[in-house]
This record gives sequence, structure tokens and C-alpha cells, in this order.
Amino acid sequence: MTAWDALAARRAGVPVFAPGHVWLAGAGPGDPGLLTLDALAGLQQADVIVYDALVDPRVLALAGPQARLEFAGKRGGKPSATQADISERLVALARAGHRVLRLKGGDPFVFGRGGEEAMALAAADVPFRVIPGVTAGLAALAAAAIPATLRGVNRAVIFAAGHGADEDFDWTPLVKAGQPLVLYMVMHNLERIAAALMAAGLDGDTPAAVIASATTPKERILVSTLRRISAAAREQKFEPPAIVVIGAIVDLRERLIGETGAVEKDSV
Amino acid sequence: MTAWDALAARRAGVPVFAPGHVWLAGAGPGDPGLLTLDALAGLQQADVIVYDALVDPRVLALAGPQARLEFAGKRGGKPSATQADISERLVALARAGHRVLRLKGGDPFVFGRGGEEAMALAAADVPFRVIPGVTAGLAALAAAAIPATLRGVNRAVIFAAGHGADEDFDWTPLVKAGQPLVLYMVMHNLERIAAALMAAGLDGDTPAAVIASATTPKERILVSTLRRISAAAREQKFEPPAIVVIGAIVDLRERLIGETGAVEKDSV
Repeated sequence: MTAWDALAARRAGVPVFAPGHVWLAGAGPGDPGLLTLDALAGLQQADVIVYDALVDPRVLALAGPQARLEFAGKRGGKPSATQADISERLVALARAGHRVLRLKGGDPFVFGRGGEEAMALAAADVPFRVIPGVTAGLAALAAAAIPATLRGVNRAVIFAAGHGADEDFDWTPLVKAGQPLVLYMVMHNLERIAAALMAAGLDGDTPAAVIASATTPKERILVSTLRRISAAAREQKFEPPAIVVIGAIVDLRERLIGETGAVEKDSV
Repeated sequence: MTAWDALAARRAGVPVFAPGHVWLAGAGPGDPGLLTLDALAGLQQADVIVYDALVDPRVLALAGPQARLEFAGKRGGKPSATQADISERLVALARAGHRVLRLKGGDPFVFGRGGEEAMALAAADVPFRVIPGVTAGLAALAAAAIPATLRGVNRAVIFAAGHGADEDFDWTPLVKAGQPLVLYMVMHNLERIAAALMAAGLDGDTPAAVIASATTPKERILVSTLRRISAAAREQKFEPPAIVVIGAIVDLRERLIGETGAVEKDSV
């Protein structure tokens, strides 16, 4: 009995993807092993898969043979689809009777504009479901052996987006919250944001790490301090996509992998 | 070809669980459809599965026939295992040559004491890997049709634990951060914490929701305001486990499910 058969036997069955419906699903961070069973069920049943740049090709390779793949992300060369274009496209595909899998990197509701798409679907009366995924921030922390929370160290963790047009964003209240920051889409502005965090009172010696392309073959991890992190990432040519984590939890990494190297990197 | 075969064909293979190793894995929020493929691979290969109270029985039902299940959570009647006991047990089982799956609800590094266990394993030189999972907070938000983030509404989201002995915890800095709060393990202290949040300056009219037993057959959702949430949860007999979310994002739920009811509750 395969795992899939086992799953099917234990539930009422895998969810059935109805024509004219949209599944707004998280593809997880990259490694297909971190895909959820429901996202996989979507990949196998979808007629059309509308995917973002951050969806791993190994995940797309799990699509059923009937599925047409449509890229809807931002990538060099061609003008990228606007958010309104994408939402309209999802509505049009669903109205044409397709089973539409909208696949986003990580979790669809975390900095992925899944909320906008869900609202557009709701406004158009298109039936949809949301399938959460392993968000990139948590996957990156696990990959880097950095616990998101640890008793006695932190009682909260803050996920924040580094990108965006609002360069005037005031980081002070987040810094004053006194909890670790897990930053998404921050690489292009890392120097500016690190400076802003220090200006807001965060100690430049605070441990900081960059985890690039977590759970993919390109995964790289850099540990430094808030003061040094931007220069170090530049020197070592770290590229997006990456998660940046700042706070005392970063120091725990050494206790987890330190001298023992007990963490399995990959047992495949 | 089953999905599992497809996965195996597209990767170097599913990860191999070596004797004497521990996999510290997230079981997700409850619905086995939100289990990751790697966690499923662990369930199928483990000799011993040490699980917490929050791991769904439908997930445990996916264990291979060779697996022995050991409960390590807190549950009425018997004295619960201490954290040190659990860590020692994991080390002992691994040293005895077992494939040990340590299965925790949600993500093992988010308020799950996975960090402590990982440190104990590292200190004992036991090889382990961490498999992230869909954290309960994000699963609950998706189940309730509440986007964790939405452009123009919030640029960060704060995950915080409501439990713990430190009743003197000062919520003011988290409130001043001005971002939505997603609270774990808060039900027993909800009245006190809601009062503390208001005392710290959070408007009593801030939208708030309780999502109990998200993604399980017992799932219930309550939408109210910060001022009313504790009394409403008590009146309606909401029980743990539950996630409480407080902030403007809660209002988005109405736009997603509102009059249209377009969100599929279950298409199984």
C-alpha cells in the first residue's frame, strides 16, 4: 500500500477538485517533501496551474499530465502580469469551467497577495478554497536549525515584509516589540532596513542570519550580526529569494549544529 | 501512477529514515491533507512515534504497521511527562537503534518546545532532522478565511504565546507594534490577556476571532471584538486548542465569505 492509498483509506478520500473551482494553495518553500498532501491533490487534479516565480520546478513536476502550466510571476524579459490581471485570469479560467490551481510559494496568505486574489474570487462568486502551506520563514528557520521560539528566549516572533514602495515605513515599533524579526523579501533593501533597525534602537551586535533559497539545492546560510549582515551578504553574493532573521534565536543555531554537526542535512 | 510514485520518480527519492536517527516533525494543524510529504514519509518508516496531544488521530492512523506509538503529551488522569523526560526518552530510543519520529502539532519550532528537544539531541550527539509543518496559526487563519497579511492593511504579523507562568508579561510593546496578533495557547488566559491588551492601549473595538480545533471535525469560528471575545468564547463554550487573532485582518473574513459564501468549506 502506498502512502497515498493509505491516506485515501483513512479519510473520506482526498479532496475532489470540482470544475469551475479555484484552489489557492501554498507550494511550500521549495522542497517537494514540504508540499502538503492537499496541494499535491490539487497538482494532480488541476486542469490549469497558475504559478508564481517562487514555486519550485520540482513541485510543478508533480502536476498531472492533463495540467496546463501558466506562469504569473515577475521575471525578467517580459512585462509581468499585474495583480488585477492575475485575479481576472483566475476568474476567467474558473468561469470557463477549469479546475484552477493557483499555486504560490510558501503560504498563500503570508505576503503572497493571496488575500487580494481570494477577495477577487469572492467578489466574482467563484468558489474557492485556501490550502495553507509551510511558509518560507518557518522553513528557512528549520533549515538553518534556528528555533522560531524557545522558552526563556522569546515568547513571540514577528514576520515582516521588507519590500514595498513605502520606504518611509517606521520600523521603530517593531524593534521596540523586543522579539525576533523574520523578514521576507528583504534582500534588495537589506542595507537600508538594517540601518533603519539600528536607528530604531536595535543593537548592531544582535545576531542575524540570511537563509537563501531554503530547502532547494541552492540553499545557503550566512550567520552574522545586524551591523554586518548586509555587507556580508553582498560580499558572499547572497541573492533572493531569502529570509533574514534577526534576534537572539539565531544564536541557538550553534547549539544545534555546533561542534557535533548532529543535524542531518539530507538523508536522501 | 500514484502521487507518491510520482513524487518518488521526480526526486532522488523520499528521504530514508536511518536507524538511530530522530526526525522532529510538524504534524500540521489536524487535517491529514495538511501533512507534508516528508512527515508522511516519517510516519511510514518510523519504528517509534513519540507524539503530542495536539497530533490528530487521523494523522497517527497513517503510521506504518511496524510503528509503535508513544504518547508524550499532557492529558488528564496521568501525570504528564516532563520536557526533560521526553528529551531523555528520544535520546534513549535513538541510541537503542530505533527510527524515532517525534511528531508535534503544527510546526515543531513554533511554541512546541522543539528547540529544547533539538538541543538535547544535539548535546547527546544523536543525529536528527527538523521537518517544518503548517503552523496552527496560519492554518487557522486560512480555515477562517482571514489573510495573515494584506497589502494596505498590515506589513507584519506577530505570533505570540498566551500560556506560561510569567503572568507579568508586558504586552505593551507588542500592542504598540501596531500589527495583528496571532495568539497560541491563549484560551485559559483569554480574559486576562484581552484585558492586558486593552490596558496596553489596544482599542476594545479591534476585530478579534477565535478559531478552535482548526481543520478538524470540531472546528468552530467565532468573530467578535477584543472587548467581547472572552465573554463570547465562554458563552459559546469554545475550548482549546484554539488560535485567537486580533487585528484589522479579521474584518477581511467578511469580504471573503460574506454574502457569497464562495469559500468551499469542504469539497470532499
